[in-house]
Amino acid sequence: MSIDARLAELGIELPVAAAPVAAYVPVVVHGGVAYVSGQLPFVDGALVKGRLGENVPMEDGVAAARACGLMILAQLKAALGSLDRVERVVKLGAFVSSSADFEGQPKIANGASELMADVFGEAGKHARSAVGVPVLPLGAAVEVDAIVAIRAD
Amino acid sequence: MSIDARLAELGIELPVAAAPVAAYVPVVVHGGVAYVSGQLPFVDGALVKGRLGENVPMEDGVAAARACGLMILAQLKAALGSLDRVERVVKLGAFVSSSADFEGQPKIANGASELMADVFGEAGKHARSAVGVPVLPLGAAVEVDAIVAIRAD
Amino acid sequence: MSIDARLAELGIELPVAAAPVAAYVPVVVHGGVAYVSGQLPFVDGALVKGRLGENVPMEDGVAAARACGLMILAQLKAALGSLDRVERVVKLGAFVSSSADFEGQPKIANGASELMADVFGEAGKHARSAVGVPVLPLGAAVEVDAIVAIRAD
Repeated sequence: MSIDARLAELGIELPVAAAPVAAYVPVVVHGGVAYVSGQLPFVDGALVKGRLGENVPMEDGVAAARACGLMILAQLKAALGSLDRVERVVKLGAFVSSSADFEGQPKIANGASELMADVFGEAGKHARSAVGVPVLPLGAAVEVDAIVAIRAD
Repeated sequence: MSIDARLAELGIELPVAAAPVAAYVPVVVHGGVAYVSGQLPFVDGALVKGRLGENVPMEDGVAAARACGLMILAQLKAALGSLDRVERVVKLGAFVSSSADFEGQPKIANGASELMADVFGEAGKHARSAVGVPVLPLGAAVEVDAIVAIRAD
Repeated sequence: MSIDARLAELGIELPVAAAPVAAYVPVVVHGGVAYVSGQLPFVDGALVKGRLGENVPMEDGVAAARACGLMILAQLKAALGSLDRVERVVKLGAFVSSSADFEGQPKIANGASELMADVFGEAGKHARSAVGVPVLPLGAAVEVDAIVAIRAD
């Protein structure tokens, strides 16, 4: 099954690949590896802002991380032409805007991690780091970047 | 000398490789490079919690970073079969739970860095980033991830 | 045009490559990729300290990020012999010391990103993550690390 068919089966519609908010590019491919810039969470076109443990409930944080994951997929599709070229999701880096006493970054980051497993199966199982940060660009609740192994065109 | 022999010489016993606290895997190998997920510090089986500059003394922070490094080794051994397959420790990423005025992240991260040099010699000399964060998963004091070049099986 | 000539044309003089502040090395090259350790911002030999949104104005923050970028170039030149070996700047990781309400990390990180585009043209266009952190080593305002694809000697 193609990844597009799998996305349809899951009822997932990818967002429009967002333009970088500054002087860089969304994806660089080198040596069979795609490096995806840190993606912010857009849900219904609006940025999910705020801080876990303060003004963003857990379920909204998980949804925000999933939205970052969807934007990673959208950027990969735009850069590669097809998500069928994804060989393996190698690593996700999850940054969670957190109050000083919020320790649930792994649960939040799962929003992105479980998306990758849902979409790519075994090839979606990745290494990961998840950390708390005090604040993110534009006040976003979560930011996720990715390293993805790809097949030749 | 094998790395196992070197560990014995150093009096180091690796911890049991911890299960990921969420939906990801500890190590992904692609293209001769192992990406190790962010590891938390377990000392005598207990997570080292707290924040440098607040309620974790320097020496405990250094020991915590070393414990993260030991867990990286344990994860690599579990994934690769043998640490003799390590060709080069390429990069460590150290996240140190820090009060707003704690600026000693490099000294803390050395706990992991010096371990790599002790165990692997020249092959243990790596690039590194060390930053302060307000909070880490489960309240951990330190988290370290790694990129490691490996030899074919 | 060589990169040295391009630097001269831009009126850029690289700083002396700073020694690591701890037990690691500035650059590791493996498999055609250079991993550059997190670099701190030195302007006229002095570390730019402080926190964006608190006691570091925007323009000083941008200059600090550019200074991190210059130090990345200095480290690459010292490690590679010549910046002409740079094939592509693949990824920058920007950590911006930020007050809890400072959301302008992308503008700050542009100080490093625009430098790469100025110096390397198309080859300088990179993927990027930019996040806020509460504090950095030695109280630095910005830290930037890099992944750079290089040509054989």
